[in-house]
Amino acid sequence: MSTFPRSYPMSGGDDQHSYNNNSSYQKAAINSVGEKTRQCIIEKLDLPLNSDLGTFRIADYGCSIGPNTFHVVQSIIDAVKFKQLEGKNETSLMPLEFQVFFNDQPNNDFNTLFITQPPSSEREYFSAGVPGSFHGQVLPRNTVHIGHTSYTTHWLSDVPENVDDKNSPAWNKNYIQCNNSIEEVTKSYKVQFTKDMKLFLEARAEEIVPGGLMIVLGQCLPDGVPLLKTYQGILVDTIGDCLMDMAKSGLTSEEKIGLFTIPAYFPQFSELETEIEKNRSFTIETMESVRHPLEYIPLSNHFLISMFRAILSTIIKEHFGEDVIDELFDRVAKKLAKYPIDFKECEKNVTYFILLKRK
Amino acid sequence: MSTFPRSYPMSGGDDQHSYNNNSSYQKAAINSVGEKTRQCIIEKLDLPLNSDLGTFRIADYGCSIGPNTFHVVQSIIDAVKFKQLEGKNETSLMPLEFQVFFNDQPNNDFNTLFITQPPSSEREYFSAGVPGSFHGQVLPRNTVHIGHTSYTTHWLSDVPENVDDKNSPAWNKNYIQCNNSIEEVTKSYKVQFTKDMKLFLEARAEEIVPGGLMIVLGQCLPDGVPLLKTYQGILVDTIGDCLMDMAKSGLTSEEKIGLFTIPAYFPQFSELETEIEKNRSFTIETMESVRHPLEYIPLSNHFLISMFRAILSTIIKEHFGEDVIDELFDRVAKKLAKYPIDFKECEKNVTYFILLKRK
Repeated sequence: MSTFPRSYPMSGGDDQHSYNNNSSYQKAAINSVGEKTRQCIIEKLDLPLNSDLGTFRIADYGCSIGPNTFHVVQSIIDAVKFKQLEGKNETSLMPLEFQVFFNDQPNNDFNTLFITQPPSSEREYFSAGVPGSFHGQVLPRNTVHIGHTSYTTHWLSDVPENVDDKNSPAWNKNYIQCNNSIEEVTKSYKVQFTKDMKLFLEARAEEIVPGGLMIVLGQCLPDGVPLLKTYQGILVDTIGDCLMDMAKSGLTSEEKIGLFTIPAYFPQFSELETEIEKNRSFTIETMESVRHPLEYIPLSNHFLISMFRAILSTIIKEHFGEDVIDELFDRVAKKLAKYPIDFKECEKNVTYFILLKRK
Repeated sequence: MSTFPRSYPMSGGDDQHSYNNNSSYQKAAINSVGEKTRQCIIEKLDLPLNSDLGTFRIADYGCSIGPNTFHVVQSIIDAVKFKQLEGKNETSLMPLEFQVFFNDQPNNDFNTLFITQPPSSEREYFSAGVPGSFHGQVLPRNTVHIGHTSYTTHWLSDVPENVDDKNSPAWNKNYIQCNNSIEEVTKSYKVQFTKDMKLFLEARAEEIVPGGLMIVLGQCLPDGVPLLKTYQGILVDTIGDCLMDMAKSGLTSEEKIGLFTIPAYFPQFSELETEIEKNRSFTIETMESVRHPLEYIPLSNHFLISMFRAILSTIIKEHFGEDVIDELFDRVAKKLAKYPIDFKECEKNVTYFILLKRK
């Protein structure tokens, strides 16, 4: 039950800027691997799905506030039920009961999650919210049958060492995230990422039952590609540039920007693979890159800005104050209108799908 | 997984009017039965507390937002651990892990609950919030070892039939709750209460494991005493009177008051006993009245008003609008200042403690 020193959930509530209404990019990825997830569960889940099991427990780690999490857990339940029907010779007097644990940081907007979830009459599971950092154990040992997480493991449990220290070679200058332009910064982020992936996998190894599955979906870089060559890197750097413009106008300060770091790291595919392979509690059943449906479509500025605002506004508010948000994203919009991202010139990031099985 | 047509949680947040800061009356009762609860668990809990159990699950039904719920679950855990140490001959390689389910309506302020709970480093349990009406099953079958609820079972799942119908003999007129002055109203409330206690106990019977315990703490009336003779009844009637005064001033209307009913019913002790005895899934290990520490102390008007405001403001807002609250409770304060409750003349209600054991 570790503590989490800093925690910046997605934008809460249900308004135009909320994650609830600006998570279709993540949804597209989840949808695109829906059939793969289903097949994996049917083929690889290795549990007796008879009445002895009683309760089948699913956890979504870093669920945010929906709606993607509801979609994911329903697909998992459908696949488990299908598999149960297949093995019907195991006489089952009582149907399985499903319990779903929605995990996220304690300051995640669970109120919105609970109010927007499907009504109990349409839900075939018992719902529970689990507040806590997934870098530590948040559920009891040997109680989870399928774990899932999507677009979460790039979030670090803390700001990497020295990246906000002006006197360190690992200082990230006025960049607000590791864009791989400074080697020492990349190293520092990587150290933190390595530590956090270890904590994440160790915690899941405690929670997931032998034979149970852990599905990890997310985004990383192709080998050899720095973040600054992808549109995501360009966009985050643009946000940083706009903050610098605001500093020049006296709306914030360079000092403040020098101390600001988004604790998110996108590893290269082989780096991620190495971290996963280090863990001895799971077998890697699948680890592959998948096609993101929006990969070859130039995204509109409005779409990009809404998505990044929903993801980053909590952390930006925390550091720079509530007032900067509207001004900042207005400036980002103007800058992108003037200098649109050239998607043809960008390197594409990788959407990965990993299926782990608890030994 | 039933739906709950109307749901009025305690006042959320952490401000001066929140339940978080105005629940010391309930806390006093919980504290006063602390030792009794502990003894009951030690004597009556009939489960093998060895490592085979793995996870020990506790549920607090209708937990609201704290802080009382945190206090209760910690006492329960302490008692279970004490009992486990007593039976040390059962070799336990792994310590028990505790998982606590905090249950309340989906519109309860879970965000405040999660943010104000003891930090994970000081908490010896995994925490989960369970949104849903306790009049239905909210957790899987056979998964809870100790259930607890305090000051909740007087809340009904719906407004009793006809009490808001002007043309019915069960019309509650301009009273806002059943004060036992109109027989037909009392009958209608009782029908709903009977139905709801049945649903509550049936749902708990599903969830609690054989040998597991259910602790129910609350408030009822002594046999033969109508609510209107207790200070609680007088206070609720005073709130109703102040609403009528506001109707005269045009701040609300008599029609609106005629349609307003607080869905809470305080049965007499023997009525409650009858409902509990009807259930065949539990044995009644203890059912007794206990002394509330504040029973013989005349409570200050400020204390009374703060307590009732924290309990009732959500339901009053829902019916009359947000604007009436300050005005209404100002008027209640003035009325009580002019006509103070004569505690010596009041009948005392009963604080009851029930321990049920799952067969």
